[in-house]
Amino acid sequence: MAFLSDSWHTLPMYTKPFAGILAAVTLVSFSAARQSRVASHDPSYTAGGELRLPENYREWVYLSSGFDMSYNPAINMDQHAFDNVFVDPEAYQSFRKTGTWPDKTMFVLEVRPAESRGSINKAGQFQGTSVAGLEVHIKDESRFAGKWAFFGFGDSKTAKMIPTSAACYSCHAQHAAVDTTFVQFYPTLLPIATGKGTLSPSYLKETTPPVESKDPPAKTR
Amino acid sequence: MAFLSDSWHTLPMYTKPFAGILAAVTLVSFSAARQSRVASHDPSYTAGGELRLPENYREWVYLSSGFDMSYNPAINMDQHAFDNVFVDPEAYQSFRKTGTWPDKTMFVLEVRPAESRGSINKAGQFQGTSVAGLEVHIKDESRFAGKWAFFGFGDSKTAKMIPTSAACYSCHAQHAAVDTTFVQFYPTLLPIATGKGTLSPSYLKETTPPVESKDPPAKTR
Repeated sequence: MAFLSDSWHTLPMYTKPFAGILAAVTLVSFSAARQSRVASHDPSYTAGGELRLPENYREWVYLSSGFDMSYNPAINMDQHAFDNVFVDPEAYQSFRKTGTWPDKTMFVLEVRPAESRGSINKAGQFQGTSVAGLEVHIKDESRFAGKWAFFGFGDSKTAKMIPTSAACYSCHAQHAAVDTTFVQFYPTLLPIATGKGTLSPSYLKETTPPVESKDPPAKTR
Repeated sequence: MAFLSDSWHTLPMYTKPFAGILAAVTLVSFSAARQSRVASHDPSYTAGGELRLPENYREWVYLSSGFDMSYNPAINMDQHAFDNVFVDPEAYQSFRKTGTWPDKTMFVLEVRPAESRGSINKAGQFQGTSVAGLEVHIKDESRFAGKWAFFGFGDSKTAKMIPTSAACYSCHAQHAAVDTTFVQFYPTLLPIATGKGTLSPSYLKETTPPVESKDPPAKTR
Protein backbone atom coordinates (compact mmCIF):
# COMPACT_ATOMS: atom_id res chain seq x y z
CA MET A 1 0.00 0.00 0.00
CA ALA A 2 1.60 3.21 -1.10
CA PHE A 3 0.68 6.79 -0.29
CA LEU A 4 3.38 8.06 -2.63
CA SER A 5 2.54 10.26 -5.57
CA ASP A 6 3.74 9.41 -9.07
CA SER A 7 6.06 12.41 -9.35
CA TRP A 8 7.60 11.50 -6.05
CA HIS A 9 9.48 8.65 -7.70
CA THR A 10 11.80 11.17 -9.31
CA LEU A 11 13.05 12.21 -5.87
CA PRO A 12 15.77 10.40 -3.88
CA MET A 13 14.67 7.35 -1.89
CA TYR A 14 14.90 9.02 1.49
CA THR A 15 12.48 11.76 0.52
CA LYS A 16 9.72 9.32 -0.38
CA PRO A 17 8.27 8.75 3.07
CA PHE A 18 7.25 12.41 3.13
CA ALA A 19 4.93 12.19 0.13
CA GLY A 20 1.44 13.30 0.87
CA ILE A 21 2.06 15.31 4.02
CA LEU A 22 1.69 18.72 2.51
CA ALA A 23 -0.90 21.03 1.03
CA ALA A 24 -0.60 24.61 -0.28
CA VAL A 25 -2.54 27.78 -1.25
CA THR A 26 -2.10 31.44 -2.12
CA LEU A 27 -4.80 33.97 -1.48
CA VAL A 28 -5.95 36.52 -4.04
CA SER A 29 -9.41 37.36 -2.76
CA PHE A 30 -8.16 38.72 0.54
CA SER A 31 -7.33 42.25 -0.55
CA ALA A 32 -9.12 43.96 2.33
CA ALA A 33 -6.73 42.53 4.90
CA ARG A 34 -3.70 42.73 2.66
CA GLN A 35 -0.51 44.38 3.83
CA SER A 36 1.94 46.05 1.50
CA ARG A 37 4.59 43.41 0.87
CA VAL A 38 7.73 43.03 -1.15
CA ALA A 39 6.59 39.79 -2.73
CA SER A 40 3.20 38.60 -3.87
CA HIS A 41 1.86 35.32 -2.57
CA ASP A 42 -0.52 34.80 -5.46
CA PRO A 43 -0.05 31.58 -7.44
CA SER A 44 1.53 32.01 -10.82
CA TYR A 45 1.22 29.58 -13.73
CA THR A 46 3.00 29.33 -17.06
CA ALA A 47 1.06 29.49 -20.32
CA GLY A 48 1.35 25.70 -20.40
CA GLY A 49 -0.34 25.39 -17.00
CA GLU A 50 2.73 24.64 -14.91
CA LEU A 51 2.93 26.20 -11.46
CA ARG A 52 5.86 28.52 -10.76
CA LEU A 53 7.72 27.79 -7.53
CA PRO A 54 7.08 30.58 -5.01
CA GLU A 55 10.73 31.48 -4.55
CA ASN A 56 10.33 33.34 -1.25
CA TYR A 57 8.52 30.51 0.54
CA ARG A 58 11.16 30.48 3.28
CA GLU A 59 9.77 33.87 4.34
CA TRP A 60 6.25 32.46 4.67
CA VAL A 61 4.77 31.24 7.95
CA TYR A 62 6.38 28.06 9.27
CA LEU A 63 3.91 25.41 10.40
CA SER A 64 6.04 22.50 11.61
CA SER A 65 8.77 19.99 10.89
CA GLY A 66 8.83 16.23 10.99
CA PHE A 67 11.79 13.90 11.38
CA ASP A 68 11.82 10.66 9.37
CA MET A 69 8.03 10.76 9.16
CA SER A 70 6.41 7.98 7.19
CA TYR A 71 2.94 6.64 6.63
CA ASN A 72 4.49 3.31 5.73
CA PRO A 73 5.96 1.34 8.67
CA ALA A 74 8.16 -0.80 6.41
CA ILE A 75 10.36 1.96 5.03
CA ASN A 76 14.04 1.69 5.86
CA MET A 77 15.65 5.10 6.22
CA ASP A 78 19.35 4.93 5.46
CA GLN A 79 19.42 8.70 5.36
CA HIS A 80 17.58 10.63 8.05
CA ALA A 81 15.57 13.60 6.81
CA PHE A 82 13.52 16.55 8.00
CA ASP A 83 10.41 17.89 6.33
CA ASN A 84 9.51 21.57 6.85
CA VAL A 85 6.07 22.97 5.99
CA PHE A 86 5.36 26.62 5.17
CA VAL A 87 2.10 28.38 4.30
CA ASP A 88 1.58 31.77 2.68
CA PRO A 89 1.00 34.54 5.24
CA GLU A 90 -2.46 35.65 4.05
CA ALA A 91 -3.80 32.11 4.23
CA TYR A 92 -2.31 31.73 7.72
CA GLN A 93 -4.02 34.90 8.97
CA SER A 94 -7.30 33.77 7.43
CA PHE A 95 -6.97 30.35 9.10
CA ARG A 96 -6.45 32.02 12.48
CA LYS A 97 -9.79 33.79 12.07
CA THR A 98 -11.83 30.97 10.50
CA GLY A 99 -10.12 27.65 11.25
CA THR A 100 -9.98 26.75 7.58
CA TRP A 101 -8.25 27.72 4.33
CA PRO A 102 -9.31 30.42 1.88
CA ASP A 103 -9.08 30.13 -1.90
CA LYS A 104 -5.51 30.55 -3.22
CA THR A 105 -3.95 29.03 -0.09
CA MET A 106 -0.51 27.60 -0.87
CA PHE A 107 1.67 25.22 1.19
CA VAL A 108 5.28 24.31 0.48
CA LEU A 109 6.79 21.07 1.80
CA GLU A 110 10.58 21.11 1.84
CA VAL A 111 12.64 17.98 2.56
CA ARG A 112 16.20 18.34 3.82
CA PRO A 113 18.64 15.51 4.57
CA ALA A 114 19.68 15.46 8.23
CA GLU A 115 23.27 15.83 9.39
CA SER A 116 24.59 14.65 12.72
CA ARG A 117 28.19 15.79 12.88
CA GLY A 118 29.11 19.43 12.50
CA SER A 119 30.57 22.20 14.59
CA ILE A 120 29.95 21.58 18.28
CA ASN A 121 26.95 19.27 17.85
CA LYS A 122 27.56 15.92 19.57
CA ALA A 123 24.19 14.20 19.34
CA GLY A 124 20.94 14.44 17.43
CA GLN A 125 20.42 15.84 13.97
CA PHE A 126 20.31 19.21 12.25
CA GLN A 127 19.29 20.31 8.76
CA GLY A 128 21.78 20.40 5.92
CA THR A 129 22.08 23.03 3.21
CA SER A 130 20.76 20.84 0.38
CA VAL A 131 17.08 20.44 -0.51
CA ALA A 132 16.09 16.88 -1.40
CA GLY A 133 12.46 17.52 -2.27
CA LEU A 134 10.00 20.34 -2.76
CA GLU A 135 6.25 20.03 -3.20
CA VAL A 136 3.38 22.51 -3.31
CA HIS A 137 -0.23 21.92 -2.31
CA ILE A 138 -2.47 24.68 -3.63
CA LYS A 139 -6.16 25.54 -3.36
CA ASP A 140 -7.39 27.20 -6.52
CA GLU A 141 -11.10 26.58 -6.71
CA SER A 142 -11.76 27.88 -10.20
CA ARG A 143 -8.80 25.98 -11.66
CA PHE A 144 -8.96 22.49 -10.12
CA ALA A 145 -12.06 20.30 -10.10
CA GLY A 146 -11.25 19.06 -6.60
CA LYS A 147 -10.33 22.63 -5.48
CA TRP A 148 -6.84 21.50 -4.42
CA ALA A 149 -3.84 20.23 -6.42
CA PHE A 150 -0.30 18.96 -5.76
CA PHE A 151 2.83 19.91 -7.69
CA GLY A 152 6.24 18.24 -7.27
CA PHE A 153 9.30 20.32 -8.11
CA GLY A 154 12.58 18.81 -9.23
CA ASP A 155 15.44 21.01 -10.33
CA SER A 156 13.06 23.16 -12.39
CA LYS A 157 11.37 26.32 -11.12
CA THR A 158 8.07 25.19 -12.67
CA ALA A 159 6.15 21.95 -12.19
CA LYS A 160 3.32 20.02 -13.78
CA MET A 161 0.33 19.14 -11.65
CA ILE A 162 0.49 15.68 -10.10
CA PRO A 163 -2.40 13.66 -11.63
CA THR A 164 -5.43 13.28 -9.35
CA SER A 165 -5.03 9.49 -9.61
CA ALA A 166 -1.97 9.77 -7.32
CA ALA A 167 -2.37 8.46 -3.80
CA CYS A 168 -1.61 11.84 -2.19
CA TYR A 169 -5.07 13.08 -3.23
CA SER A 170 -7.03 10.19 -1.75
CA CYS A 171 -4.89 10.06 1.39
CA HIS A 172 -5.33 13.77 2.08
CA ALA A 173 -9.05 13.53 1.37
CA GLN A 174 -9.49 10.58 3.72
CA HIS A 175 -7.19 11.43 6.63
CA ALA A 176 -6.44 15.17 6.74
CA ALA A 177 -7.82 17.10 9.72
CA VAL A 178 -8.97 20.25 7.89
CA ASP A 179 -9.98 20.68 4.23
CA THR A 180 -7.52 18.05 2.87
CA THR A 181 -4.58 19.46 4.89
CA PHE A 182 -2.71 17.69 7.69
CA VAL A 183 -3.47 20.23 10.41
CA GLN A 184 -3.10 17.37 12.93
CA PHE A 185 0.68 17.77 12.44
CA TYR A 186 0.72 21.59 12.76
CA PRO A 187 0.83 22.29 16.50
CA THR A 188 -0.22 25.95 16.43
CA LEU A 189 -3.16 25.33 14.07
CA LEU A 190 -4.72 22.19 15.57
CA PRO A 191 -6.05 24.05 18.67
CA ILE A 192 -7.57 26.74 16.41
CA ALA A 193 -9.38 24.20 14.23
CA THR A 194 -10.52 22.33 17.33
CA GLY A 195 -11.88 25.51 18.87
CA LYS A 196 -13.65 26.63 15.71
CA GLY A 197 -15.12 23.20 15.00
CA THR A 198 -13.56 22.86 11.55
CA LEU A 199 -12.05 19.39 11.99
CA SER A 200 -13.22 17.00 9.29
CA PRO A 201 -15.69 14.23 10.18
CA SER A 202 -13.29 11.55 8.92
CA TYR A 203 -10.47 12.88 11.12
CA LEU A 204 -12.74 13.07 14.15
CA LYS A 205 -13.84 9.50 13.55
CA GLU A 206 -10.22 8.31 13.32
CA THR A 207 -9.15 10.06 16.51
CA THR A 208 -12.17 9.24 18.70
CA PRO A 209 -11.41 6.28 20.97
CA PRO A 210 -13.89 3.41 20.55
CA VAL A 211 -16.68 3.45 23.13
CA GLU A 212 -16.40 0.49 25.48
CA SER A 213 -19.35 -1.83 25.65
CA LYS A 214 -21.63 -1.24 28.62
CA ASP A 215 -22.79 -4.85 28.56
CA PRO A 216 -21.48 -6.89 31.47
CA PRO A 217 -18.71 -9.27 30.43
CA ALA A 218 -19.98 -12.67 29.37
CA LYS A 219 -19.63 -15.28 32.07
CA THR A 220 -17.13 -17.89 31.10
CA ARG A 221 -18.58 -20.61 33.30
CA MET B 1 31.28 19.97 31.05
CA ALA B 2 28.03 21.87 30.73
CA PHE B 3 26.93 24.42 28.17
CA LEU B 4 23.64 24.89 29.96
CA SER B 5 22.51 28.27 31.21
CA ASP B 6 21.41 28.79 34.80
CA SER B 7 17.80 29.55 33.94
CA TRP B 8 17.66 26.40 31.87
CA HIS B 9 17.48 24.28 35.02
CA THR B 10 13.90 25.40 35.50
CA LEU B 11 12.93 23.61 32.28
CA PRO B 12 12.18 19.88 31.96
CA MET B 13 15.17 17.57 31.61
CA TYR B 14 14.66 16.83 27.96
CA THR B 15 14.84 20.48 26.97
CA LYS B 16 18.28 20.96 28.50
CA PRO B 17 20.39 19.69 25.60
CA PHE B 18 19.10 22.62 23.55
CA ALA B 19 20.53 25.34 25.80
CA GLY B 20 22.85 27.67 24.04
CA ILE B 21 21.78 27.03 20.46
CA LEU B 22 19.83 30.20 19.95
CA ALA B 23 20.37 33.92 19.58
CA ALA B 24 17.90 36.76 18.87
CA VAL B 25 17.42 40.41 17.70
CA THR B 26 14.78 43.00 16.80
CA LEU B 27 15.59 45.90 14.54
CA VAL B 28 14.59 49.49 15.26
CA SER B 29 17.05 51.39 13.07
CA PHE B 30 15.76 49.91 9.83
CA SER B 31 12.90 52.30 9.17
CA ALA B 32 13.83 52.99 5.55
CA ALA B 33 13.08 49.45 4.46
CA ARG B 34 10.23 48.94 6.88
CA GLN B 35 6.94 47.52 5.67
CA SER B 36 3.61 48.29 7.26
CA ARG B 37 3.01 45.41 9.64
CA VAL B 38 0.43 44.37 12.15
CA ALA B 39 2.99 43.76 14.87
CA SER B 40 6.20 45.52 15.78
CA HIS B 41 9.37 43.50 16.07
CA ASP B 42 11.09 45.95 18.40
CA PRO B 43 12.22 44.54 21.75
CA SER B 44 10.12 45.60 24.71
CA TYR B 45 11.27 45.63 28.33
CA THR B 46 9.40 46.10 31.59
CA ALA B 47 10.31 48.96 33.97
CA GLY B 48 12.23 46.34 35.96
CA GLY B 49 14.35 45.41 32.95
CA GLU B 50 12.65 42.13 32.05
CA LEU B 51 12.20 41.32 28.36
CA ARG B 52 8.66 40.84 27.11
CA LEU B 53 8.14 37.68 25.05
CA PRO B 54 7.49 38.61 21.40
CA GLU B 55 4.13 36.89 21.19
CA ASN B 56 3.96 36.72 17.39
CA TYR B 57 7.34 35.02 16.96
CA ARG B 58 5.71 32.13 15.08
CA GLU B 59 5.06 34.61 12.27
CA TRP B 60 8.75 35.54 12.08
CA VAL B 61 11.20 33.97 9.66
CA TYR B 62 11.95 30.31 10.39
CA LEU B 63 15.64 29.44 10.30
CA SER B 64 15.79 25.72 11.07
CA SER B 65 14.91 22.86 13.39
CA GLY B 66 17.05 20.33 15.17
CA PHE B 67 16.07 16.91 16.51
CA ASP B 68 17.56 15.76 19.83
CA MET B 69 20.51 18.10 19.31
CA SER B 70 23.04 18.19 22.10
CA TYR B 71 26.49 19.59 22.67
CA ASN B 72 26.99 16.95 25.34
CA PRO B 73 27.45 13.38 24.05
CA ALA B 74 26.54 11.82 27.41
CA ILE B 75 22.96 13.03 27.64
CA ASN B 76 20.28 10.35 27.71
CA MET B 77 17.11 11.45 25.93
CA ASP B 78 14.11 9.60 27.28
CA GLN B 79 11.88 12.10 25.50
CA HIS B 80 12.73 13.11 21.96
CA ALA B 81 12.43 16.80 21.20
CA PHE B 82 12.58 19.33 18.37
CA ASP B 83 14.03 22.82 18.60
CA ASN B 84 12.74 25.47 16.19
CA VAL B 85 14.54 28.78 15.64
CA PHE B 86 12.88 31.98 14.40
CA VAL B 87 14.35 35.44 13.72
CA ASP B 88 12.54 38.76 13.34
CA PRO B 89 11.87 39.61 9.67
CA GLU B 90 13.79 42.90 9.55
CA ALA B 91 16.93 41.27 10.92
CA TYR B 92 16.56 38.44 8.40
CA GLN B 93 16.33 40.87 5.47
CA SER B 94 19.34 42.78 6.79
CA PHE B 95 21.32 39.53 7.10
CA ARG B 96 20.54 38.64 3.48
CA LYS B 97 22.15 41.92 2.40
CA THR B 98 25.11 42.03 4.78
CA GLY B 99 25.77 38.50 6.10
CA THR B 100 25.54 39.65 9.70
CA TRP B 101 23.05 40.91 12.26
CA PRO B 102 21.91 44.50 12.85
CA ASP B 103 21.24 46.05 16.24
CA LYS B 104 17.90 44.92 17.76
CA THR B 105 18.07 41.48 16.10
CA MET B 106 16.01 38.96 18.06
CA PHE B 107 15.97 35.15 17.86
CA VAL B 108 13.47 32.84 19.52
CA LEU B 109 14.34 29.20 20.27
CA GLU B 110 11.28 27.05 20.85
CA VAL B 111 11.54 23.47 22.16
CA ARG B 112 8.70 21.03 21.51
CA PRO B 113 8.48 17.42 22.69
CA ALA B 114 8.32 14.98 19.77
CA GLU B 115 5.42 12.59 19.21
CA SER B 116 5.61 9.40 17.20
CA ARG B 117 2.11 8.01 17.10
CA GLY B 118 -0.79 10.07 15.82
CA SER B 119 -3.19 10.03 12.93
CA ILE B 120 -1.70 8.13 9.98
CA ASN B 121 1.94 8.56 10.97
CA LYS B 122 3.65 5.18 11.25
CA ALA B 123 7.32 6.08 11.73
CA GLY B 124 9.46 9.03 12.66
CA GLN B 125 8.48 11.97 14.81
CA PHE B 126 6.34 15.08 14.61
CA GLN B 127 5.94 18.12 16.85
CA GLY B 128 3.40 18.16 19.66
CA THR B 129 1.19 21.04 20.72
CA SER B 130 3.02 21.77 23.98
CA VAL B 131 6.04 24.04 24.29
CA ALA B 132 8.71 22.73 26.66
CA GLY B 133 11.13 25.64 26.47
CA LEU B 134 11.40 29.15 25.06
CA GLU B 135 14.51 31.29 24.96
CA VAL B 136 15.36 34.61 23.34
CA HIS B 137 18.77 35.80 22.16
CA ILE B 138 18.77 39.53 21.52
CA LYS B 139 21.27 42.07 20.25
CA ASP B 140 20.76 45.44 21.92
CA GLU B 141 24.07 47.25 21.74
CA SER B 142 23.24 50.22 23.96
CA ARG B 143 21.72 47.99 26.64
CA PHE B 144 24.10 45.03 27.04
CA ALA B 145 27.85 45.38 27.58
CA GLY B 146 28.49 42.35 25.35
CA LYS B 147 25.91 43.62 22.80
CA TRP B 148 23.94 40.35 23.05
CA ALA B 149 21.93 38.79 25.89
CA PHE B 150 19.92 35.61 26.55
CA PHE B 151 16.53 35.39 28.26
CA GLY B 152 14.83 32.16 29.32
CA PHE B 153 11.04 32.16 29.52
CA GLY B 154 9.10 29.84 31.78
CA ASP B 155 5.35 30.21 32.12
CA SER B 156 5.67 34.01 32.38
CA LYS B 157 5.45 36.40 29.44
CA THR B 158 8.46 38.33 30.79
CA ALA B 159 11.94 37.07 31.66
CA LYS B 160 15.04 38.22 33.48
CA MET B 161 18.30 38.30 31.59
CA ILE B 162 20.43 35.17 32.01
CA PRO B 163 23.63 36.26 33.83
CA THR B 164 26.65 36.62 31.56
CA SER B 165 28.45 34.05 33.72
CA ALA B 166 26.24 31.36 32.17
CA ALA B 167 27.92 28.98 29.75
CA CYS B 168 25.65 29.95 26.84
CA TYR B 169 27.55 33.25 26.50
CA SER B 170 31.03 31.76 26.35
CA CYS B 171 29.91 28.88 24.10
CA HIS B 172 28.27 31.22 21.60
CA ALA B 173 31.29 33.54 21.70
CA GLN B 174 33.71 30.70 21.08
CA HIS B 175 31.88 28.50 18.58
CA ALA B 176 29.16 30.47 16.74
CA ALA B 177 29.69 31.04 13.02
CA VAL B 178 28.49 34.67 12.83
CA ASP B 179 28.44 37.33 15.56
CA THR B 180 27.73 34.88 18.44
CA THR B 181 24.91 33.13 16.51
CA PHE B 182 24.91 29.51 15.32
CA VAL B 183 24.53 30.26 11.62
CA GLN B 184 26.30 26.94 10.94
CA PHE B 185 22.96 25.27 11.79
CA TYR B 186 20.79 27.62 9.64
CA PRO B 187 20.95 26.16 6.13
CA THR B 188 19.68 29.18 4.20
CA LEU B 189 21.99 31.62 6.02
CA LEU B 190 25.30 29.72 6.03
CA PRO B 191 25.83 30.15 2.26
CA ILE B 192 25.12 33.89 2.58
CA ALA B 193 27.66 34.35 5.38
CA THR B 194 30.18 32.24 3.48
CA GLY B 195 29.71 34.34 0.36
CA LYS B 196 29.95 37.64 2.20
CA GLY B 197 32.97 36.60 4.24
CA THR B 198 31.31 37.19 7.62
CA LEU B 199 32.15 33.82 9.24
CA SER B 200 34.00 34.29 12.52
CA PRO B 201 37.73 33.45 12.70
CA SER B 202 37.10 30.95 15.52
CA TYR B 203 34.46 29.12 13.47
CA LEU B 204 36.71 29.04 10.40
CA LYS B 205 39.53 27.63 12.51
CA GLU B 206 37.26 24.91 13.91
CA THR B 207 35.97 23.86 10.51
CA THR B 208 39.22 23.96 8.54
CA PRO B 209 40.67 20.46 8.20
CA PRO B 210 44.18 20.20 9.63
CA VAL B 211 46.89 20.52 6.99
CA GLU B 212 48.70 17.21 6.54
CA SER B 213 52.39 17.26 7.14
CA LYS B 214 54.48 17.40 3.97
CA ASP B 215 57.38 15.68 5.67
CA PRO B 216 57.95 12.14 4.44
CA PRO B 217 56.87 9.50 6.93
CA ALA B 218 59.60 8.52 9.31
CA LYS B 219 61.26 5.26 8.39
CA THR B 220 60.51 2.61 10.92
CA ARG B 221 63.68 0.64 10.28
